[in-house]
Amino acid sequence: MEISVLRNVLDANDVIAKENRKAFDAHGCFVVNLMSAPGSGKTTLLERTLRALDGRLKAGVIEGDVQGSLDADRLARLGVPVAQINTDPHFGGECHLDARMVWHALPAIELDGLDLVFIENVGNLVCPASWDLGEDAKVVLFSVTEGEDKPLKYPKMFQQARCAVLSKMDLLPHVPFKVEQAVEFARRVNPELEIVFTSSVLDDGLEEWYGFLRSQLRRRSAA
Amino acid sequence: MEISVLRNVLDANDVIAKENRKAFDAHGCFVVNLMSAPGSGKTTLLERTLRALDGRLKAGVIEGDVQGSLDADRLARLGVPVAQINTDPHFGGECHLDARMVWHALPAIELDGLDLVFIENVGNLVCPASWDLGEDAKVVLFSVTEGEDKPLKYPKMFQQARCAVLSKMDLLPHVPFKVEQAVEFARRVNPELEIVFTSSVLDDGLEEWYGFLRSQLRRRSAA
Repeated sequence: MEISVLRNVLDANDVIAKENRKAFDAHGCFVVNLMSAPGSGKTTLLERTLRALDGRLKAGVIEGDVQGSLDADRLARLGVPVAQINTDPHFGGECHLDARMVWHALPAIELDGLDLVFIENVGNLVCPASWDLGEDAKVVLFSVTEGEDKPLKYPKMFQQARCAVLSKMDLLPHVPFKVEQAVEFARRVNPELEIVFTSSVLDDGLEEWYGFLRSQLRRRSAA
Repeated sequence: MEISVLRNVLDANDVIAKENRKAFDAHGCFVVNLMSAPGSGKTTLLERTLRALDGRLKAGVIEGDVQGSLDADRLARLGVPVAQINTDPHFGGECHLDARMVWHALPAIELDGLDLVFIENVGNLVCPASWDLGEDAKVVLFSVTEGEDKPLKYPKMFQQARCAVLSKMDLLPHVPFKVEQAVEFARRVNPELEIVFTSSVLDDGLEEWYGFLRSQLRRRSAA
C-alpha cells in the first residue's frame, strides 16, 4: 500500500520531469542537477563556476532549500538569474526537489539565451537521487571530511550520477581519508562514474570540472 | 491530498513511537536519537562514548543505514549489542528511521539491563527530525566543515534537538568557520539548546558530552 502510493507519486513526477526536459531542450539549455550532503560545498563550487564561465557561457541557477535564501542570495550577487525553491510547507520540509517544484520555478528564470542551468538540490545524499527533475546530468559532491564510505552507504546517489566531485581536497592533510579507497568504492557502485578532485579554496581541480561541463555540452551539441 | 496522506502516516508513526517508549521505559533505558548530515562523525562519537562508558553504564545501539552494516560492524567490535536497520526496500532507501523500523529492531537487542540506547539515524538533516522513534532526547551533530548556516537551513532538526554537538573542532584552524556565529544561529532557532564542542580525534570536549548524558540520566531518575 505504502509502496504503491510512492510508486504513483514517482510516476507522476516523471511525467512532469518530461515536460521540464522539453522546456529545457526547447531553449537549448544543458541542465545539471547538483546534489550532496549538507555542507559539502555545492554553493561554493557554483560560485567559482559561475565566475569562471562569465563571458563564455550564460548560466542560471535553480536553488533548492528547505527554508531561506542564503545560497540564492550568494549566487544572485554574481549577476546570474536565480530562482529560489523552498520545500518547507510539509512537516519540516521536503528533503529533495521534485519535478513539479522545478516546473513552478521555471517562470522565475528566463531560459531563453541560457546555455547552462544548475539545479542546486536540497542537501541530502538519499532522496534527491530518486526524483528526476528533467536534468541532463546528475552530479554528486562529497568532501574528504565525510569519510570514504559514502558511496557504499548512499549507493543510489553514486549510481545515478554522471560525475562525482570529491571536494575540500585542501583538508586532506588533516583528515584520515584515503582517496584511493574512496575512488574504489565509488567505481564499485558505478564503474562509469567520472571523478574530479577539487579544492574551491585553493582553486585546484576546477579546470577538470569545467572540462567535464564542456565535454557534456559538446556531447549534447553533437547529439 | 498529499498532505493528508503524510499526516496520516505521521500519526500512525506516533502510535508506534508510544509503544517503543513504553518498552524502553519498562526496561529503564534512556534513549538518545542521534542525527546529523552524512559524515559528521556520529559513529566515531559513539565509538568514543561506548568505550568511555564501558564498566560504568550498559549501552546498546540501534543502527540505521540505507544499506550495509559498516557502522554496526564498527560498533559491534566494542562488544555492545547492536541492531542493524536497513531502510533500502523503497526506491533507493528511506532517508530516515521511523518508529515501526525501531519496533521491529527491538527483539535484536536485549533491553533488559541496558541503561542507555543510542539510535544512530540515517545521515540526513531534514526528515529524521519529523519522525518520533520513542526516544527520550534528540541530539544533532554538525561539524565545523559544514558551515555556520546549517541551523538556519535545517531549522526543524535544531528545534527538535535537546543538545547539539559541534564536531571536528580539530579542523577549525583549516576552515573558514566562525564558532560564535554558528552558536548564535543555533540559539536563534532553539534558545534552550545545549551545545557541546568536540573533537573525537583530540578527545576534546567529550567530558562535556558525557556530562550532558549523565545530566539526562539524572533528570530521568528524578522524574
